[in-house]
Amino acid sequence: MEPASLGDVSTPGRVAAVGEGIGLDELALAARNHGLPLEALRYEVTPPGLHYVLVHYDIPAAEEAAWRLTVGGRVRTPLTLDPAALRALPAVTRRVTMECAGNGRARLSPRPVSQPWLVEAVGTADWTGVPLSTVLAMAGVERDAVEAVFTGADHGVERGVEQDYQRSLPLPVATGEDPRVLIAYAMNGLPLPPQHGYPLRLVVPGWYGMAHVKWLRDITLVDTPFTGFQQAVAYRYRQSPDEQGEAVGRIAPRALMIPPGFPDFMSRVRVVRPGPVPLEGRAWSGYGAVARVEVSGDGGRTWTEAEVAPRARRELAWQAWRCPWTATPGTHVLLARATDTEGRTQPLEQPWNRGGFANNLPQQVTVLCC
Amino acid sequence: MEPASLGDVSTPGRVAAVGEGIGLDELALAARNHGLPLEALRYEVTPPGLHYVLVHYDIPAAEEAAWRLTVGGRVRTPLTLDPAALRALPAVTRRVTMECAGNGRARLSPRPVSQPWLVEAVGTADWTGVPLSTVLAMAGVERDAVEAVFTGADHGVERGVEQDYQRSLPLPVATGEDPRVLIAYAMNGLPLPPQHGYPLRLVVPGWYGMAHVKWLRDITLVDTPFTGFQQAVAYRYRQSPDEQGEAVGRIAPRALMIPPGFPDFMSRVRVVRPGPVPLEGRAWSGYGAVARVEVSGDGGRTWTEAEVAPRARRELAWQAWRCPWTATPGTHVLLARATDTEGRTQPLEQPWNRGGFANNLPQQVTVLCC
Repeated sequence: MEPASLGDVSTPGRVAAVGEGIGLDELALAARNHGLPLEALRYEVTPPGLHYVLVHYDIPAAEEAAWRLTVGGRVRTPLTLDPAALRALPAVTRRVTMECAGNGRARLSPRPVSQPWLVEAVGTADWTGVPLSTVLAMAGVERDAVEAVFTGADHGVERGVEQDYQRSLPLPVATGEDPRVLIAYAMNGLPLPPQHGYPLRLVVPGWYGMAHVKWLRDITLVDTPFTGFQQAVAYRYRQSPDEQGEAVGRIAPRALMIPPGFPDFMSRVRVVRPGPVPLEGRAWSGYGAVARVEVSGDGGRTWTEAEVAPRARRELAWQAWRCPWTATPGTHVLLARATDTEGRTQPLEQPWNRGGFANNLPQQVTVLCC
Repeated sequence: MEPASLGDVSTPGRVAAVGEGIGLDELALAARNHGLPLEALRYEVTPPGLHYVLVHYDIPAAEEAAWRLTVGGRVRTPLTLDPAALRALPAVTRRVTMECAGNGRARLSPRPVSQPWLVEAVGTADWTGVPLSTVLAMAGVERDAVEAVFTGADHGVERGVEQDYQRSLPLPVATGEDPRVLIAYAMNGLPLPPQHGYPLRLVVPGWYGMAHVKWLRDITLVDTPFTGFQQAVAYRYRQSPDEQGEAVGRIAPRALMIPPGFPDFMSRVRVVRPGPVPLEGRAWSGYGAVARVEVSGDGGRTWTEAEVAPRARRELAWQAWRCPWTATPGTHVLLARATDTEGRTQPLEQPWNRGGFANNLPQQVTVLCC
């Protein structure tokens, strides 16, 4: 009980034994970083305080007046901008559905030990900011730049590596139109809350949350691919620890159902009365619009097509769906499954990977009709 | 796997076996109901979205225009009030520190299986509303009334009992000045967020959170003590299940420390450099002002008195404390312990009870100095 080095307190990632209960370390992360209560899927735009939160280290103390965003590296004109200067530039507002790459992790067996999400790590907000391409054009990106590296103010240790949180984007993504990356300073018309990146953050519509660097303080253009921890070690799809793995990027398709009826406090089983029970929810994909949502009332044996609202043009936000259902006495397991316009669909077997990323196995809602 | 009655899905409370890991049911509650990230103790008033949340069932959908608060039972003049009518009455704003009765539950061994809080189920807000005594005076409470029963709009099942969330207060508490109970409609100057009780809730300064009925829709004055589930079954201090137990009420004293330095992502061990490390935090008690905070840098072997800010008059809100500390290389376990003006202090042995309430064993912060 007397560790003396970082390596003693900051150990490599591990996978729990099959059937191993959630640990107090995982619980501490669950208590700090909350999900969207599923009844709040009824709000098109997630109310303040209900949007999921994932803070790797601590929410940094920040004062807007003292905040600076530097742009440097492979640029002609290095910049130092304050939030006021950014707000003076032409602004853009986009409705974006954001999801944590680790959503679904705690439903995997065996369970990768990290932030133990079930299905609730999602939210939708209207983000206002300056297109990243505008700021990069001001700096004048050199021809040999291949990526932009984004550094946040949050500092900590992870798997033995002390770091500021950093992620990069390939240059075509950073400057492109699909998605249009923003340096955001407002969420739903108000300054960013502390836990959502105050005063500045990146927003990369269609990508998982790790890309949307919070408490953004530096952008550096580089001429070789970035190999920092969060890029080369953490957010990779791997089966075994020694693989380089594939980079985690765009959000895999998912549908979520607003749990019908009313809940049991402890089990979260839903109770409904016999008769018509309209089912509703939201669906999204980072690859394109949702083309289809199917709903099962019998644990996945049979499926019915739901009615899906079209996606608003130029938004990468979830689409509402609804499906009539009739409840008969007994227990039923309801599922919803999304397919996007590229044909990507939610799998019916768990898509296990060592980091526990992108587990978009369909949500299961247990309903007691009595 | 085919339950057909409420009793199958809504089982009695239980205590986990010693060493039993957290279950997926506890995890689902942790993901829905979040705590205050401890670095956010730096804010005197907790920013929106960071104040702890405990929703027993679901956040009800509510529209202020349609909302009515009825006052009836043992009164001369039953009332039906809408939020606009309440806002027209003389308003009061009070800064209140609120804590969940179950804070600390998951640190108990053996662990009562319920919402698995560690130490973070707390927040401080400025609540604005009408004194309950004003509304009760308008209704004219009959002489034989002994309690006021408060009913919220949240409906669910708990330990086999289907219910709207209901709690009562003895009449002297309901109409008294210490604390002054409010029917609140604003939090930090804005309408209540959905998860904090929109559009109306009770605020009972100094009492644990279960008393502060959210989504308040009815007040009924009764001539016999209320024996509803949340009053007679749930929130009681018991050692064994068959005891009637003592009612949970006022908040036991607690000090929390802002974890110093920076964290390891997974273990939440703190890392500091050798030298002076000022320690700071907040302390509170529902019974009175905090008289003393003591801090230990050696796992509780020796204690130093911290400097404690006085409590603002007429507020039942936490008080800031600070204590200098010098970090030397190695691992240290830091503790903070509060004592209030009534002499109540945090215990050094866990105060076990079957419901897992009021476990105010001092927080332990593990710090690696290197």
